[in-house]
Amino acid sequence: MRRDREALRGLSNVTQMHAARRGELTPEMDYVAGQEGLEADFVRAEVARGRMIIPANVNHRALQPMAIGTNARCKINANIGNSATTSEIEAELEKLRLAVKYGSDTVMDLSTGGNIPEIRQAIIEASPVPIGTVPIYEVLAIVKDPEQLSIDAFLEVVERQAQQGVDYMTLHCGVLLRHVPLTAGRVTGIVSRGGSILAHWMIRHHRENPLYEHFDLLLDVCKRYDVSISLGDGLRPGCLADANDEAQFAELEVLGELTLRAWEEDVQVMIEGPGHVPFHLIAMNVEKERQVCHEAPFYVLGPLVTDIAPGYDHITSAIGATMAGTAGAAMLCYVTPKEHLGLPNAEDVRQGVIAYKIAAHAADIARGKPGARSRDDALSKARFEFDWEQQFALSLDPDRAREYHDETLPHEAFKEAHFCSMCGPKFCSMRITQDVRQLVQLSGAPA
Amino acid sequence: MRRDREALRGLSNVTQMHAARRGELTPEMDYVAGQEGLEADFVRAEVARGRMIIPANVNHRALQPMAIGTNARCKINANIGNSATTSEIEAELEKLRLAVKYGSDTVMDLSTGGNIPEIRQAIIEASPVPIGTVPIYEVLAIVKDPEQLSIDAFLEVVERQAQQGVDYMTLHCGVLLRHVPLTAGRVTGIVSRGGSILAHWMIRHHRENPLYEHFDLLLDVCKRYDVSISLGDGLRPGCLADANDEAQFAELEVLGELTLRAWEEDVQVMIEGPGHVPFHLIAMNVEKERQVCHEAPFYVLGPLVTDIAPGYDHITSAIGATMAGTAGAAMLCYVTPKEHLGLPNAEDVRQGVIAYKIAAHAADIARGKPGARSRDDALSKARFEFDWEQQFALSLDPDRAREYHDETLPHEAFKEAHFCSMCGPKFCSMRITQDVRQLVQLSGAPA
Repeated sequence: MRRDREALRGLSNVTQMHAARRGELTPEMDYVAGQEGLEADFVRAEVARGRMIIPANVNHRALQPMAIGTNARCKINANIGNSATTSEIEAELEKLRLAVKYGSDTVMDLSTGGNIPEIRQAIIEASPVPIGTVPIYEVLAIVKDPEQLSIDAFLEVVERQAQQGVDYMTLHCGVLLRHVPLTAGRVTGIVSRGGSILAHWMIRHHRENPLYEHFDLLLDVCKRYDVSISLGDGLRPGCLADANDEAQFAELEVLGELTLRAWEEDVQVMIEGPGHVPFHLIAMNVEKERQVCHEAPFYVLGPLVTDIAPGYDHITSAIGATMAGTAGAAMLCYVTPKEHLGLPNAEDVRQGVIAYKIAAHAADIARGKPGARSRDDALSKARFEFDWEQQFALSLDPDRAREYHDETLPHEAFKEAHFCSMCGPKFCSMRITQDVRQLVQLSGAPA
Repeated sequence: MRRDREALRGLSNVTQMHAARRGELTPEMDYVAGQEGLEADFVRAEVARGRMIIPANVNHRALQPMAIGTNARCKINANIGNSATTSEIEAELEKLRLAVKYGSDTVMDLSTGGNIPEIRQAIIEASPVPIGTVPIYEVLAIVKDPEQLSIDAFLEVVERQAQQGVDYMTLHCGVLLRHVPLTAGRVTGIVSRGGSILAHWMIRHHRENPLYEHFDLLLDVCKRYDVSISLGDGLRPGCLADANDEAQFAELEVLGELTLRAWEEDVQVMIEGPGHVPFHLIAMNVEKERQVCHEAPFYVLGPLVTDIAPGYDHITSAIGATMAGTAGAAMLCYVTPKEHLGLPNAEDVRQGVIAYKIAAHAADIARGKPGARSRDDALSKARFEFDWEQQFALSLDPDRAREYHDETLPHEAFKEAHFCSMCGPKFCSMRITQDVRQLVQLSGAPA
């Protein structure tokens, strides 16, 4: 499922897009087509068009390729990584394991503390899914003072991460000096960590964003390893009040421009999106990205549909994510219950991943993706037949489903019972329906 | 806020709708108008029109009136009650207390085991919110054999519950004999407990639904106490595969007919809705109810947008509920994480209520209800200012928000810290934004 790395050695451009545009069907495209139930040549055409990306760094050997695009199944990403206040490599690998176990399609390592390269190396080696990063975190860990940021420091980190096998990188290339004043009237200002740091640098030095000015140098690295760029939305809204404002859309225009520049070099691109958006404005956000960014895959963070539920933002955001996916967003970045409050632990990762599997799956059904509903139908059939073991097996989280069932009816005998403790034996509608069907048959009524 | 009960004694019709239609502005309408920020006469007109109901049994003395209708704020209901396998009165009162604490607008007591009338009496006396019931559960507890159901047994129970002060009752009057065969091809058959029992009775006796045939006798009881009828959807879909089928919509037509019959007697009515519905079909379900049922308030159960997440159905259904509320559903019946698996405990009630407060609130914002976003803006402002105590206070669940924050940063000093453990001090975008704003001011750039 992977290209021969030796054959790619020394080539100046090894991206999937480069291959696709030359008409080459890579093993990655072929594998993805099989996974998605799509024609291989359709996948190739989508990758060539830039409407689908296959983030697959040639140095990420453990990777099982996957695709991100509106015409593939809706994907989800789980963020892991430590912060300066908590840092343990084993804990991060456990989060990775859980994220993959529960179905996360990619994982971003957002570590900002401890030995960042070492943690990342361990994560890449252990991960069958694409790994994304936000290089500015490591750059800052090196230069210490944010004012000392420079394109050279950036390129060094991006090159090293690419060498390690990072499949996609969030780069906030689109937040420009002229955008910063547009955020002055915002309720929550700039909430992207990378965006706020770059804004600080630009204002302090009265100079343009170095990631914008030297975008071509970043593309050069991406071409040599096939790193996909996730164009960061440094000015995404951090609350409902700031949604859809001038700053957000001004940056989006620049991301559209950068998309075309990346495509000129055959570098794969996706576009990051909000954030916090009222429910009724989500579809228009997706449509606007599609138009402004030339159908490059849209990778949204939620969005959260209300600001008043800290502790439950996996839910506020899964609601928005379902709408975004239904409108065409290609990947949904999960939010955990700890969002806005603290760093997620392993159980938070599980909660976040399941909430987003729900959102992505519901969106696939709503978009009418072929076969999307099969698992629902199979589980419903098992439910009607009181096949509890099969119900658990088909669940997104079999362990949790079993645990909840057993909380009130723990004995093994109840695994074949024709009821659960919710209704009890007398009021189980499904058991009664089965009786009704027998009666209908006996009475000869039309069925 | 309540009418003088003595003045109503002996009247044959004491409903809010009856008063509204005679041009009378009741204390309940006046109170509701204040709560909703609506003109009192608008509330009266809506109640007279049947587009808004005020479920307020004259015998429910502890009640603080509230309104259910598309032009009021979106409401939520929490189901409590025991089943034959678990039964304790104190546990139910604790669930009631939690449901009200976290903001449930009404509570349904769905007890099916133990001393049902005694549990209900305790709940009504303790409840400031309207209490709903499904009388068929008590009827069955009395007649024992479902085949012995009769309209007399029903009327006796409905009268007693009305006398106790039940504010609204789910009555499955719309599921008819001719509908039952329409469910034969379904994956999960009939999933409404009341609907399945009535279907069983109808097929067994080859007779029409007694609640349909004797609807007028039920209306007579409702008129004397002002019991609102929640017309049950006995044939709601129990899985995605069964959504929007002939059975579901055939029953809905009957509910529309019964709505007009109830309105002829000035009895308040709302319509129950699904259930399990793919995300993209939810808005049409709401629109269809509006047309077929003459704009009577729609009271939906979720709907769940996928069947594959048992253990997380508060989330699968809160997604659907947000869409339903946005499309105009007036009340959202919560679903807890235990749905399909067992009877909810107190923590499940809390999880369900918060998930639905999120859905209803997000829907109000999406519908542009005046002032709906104020709390979001206030919390976001507190967030930007690192006013943690105010953030917690404005949260839907302050205890949980504080608990999660303190999990990693427990010391009181961190309540004034300009960061949380999610990003740590170095990467807090909001702190950096504040620095940027100072820099912009210093540099004289336009803001």
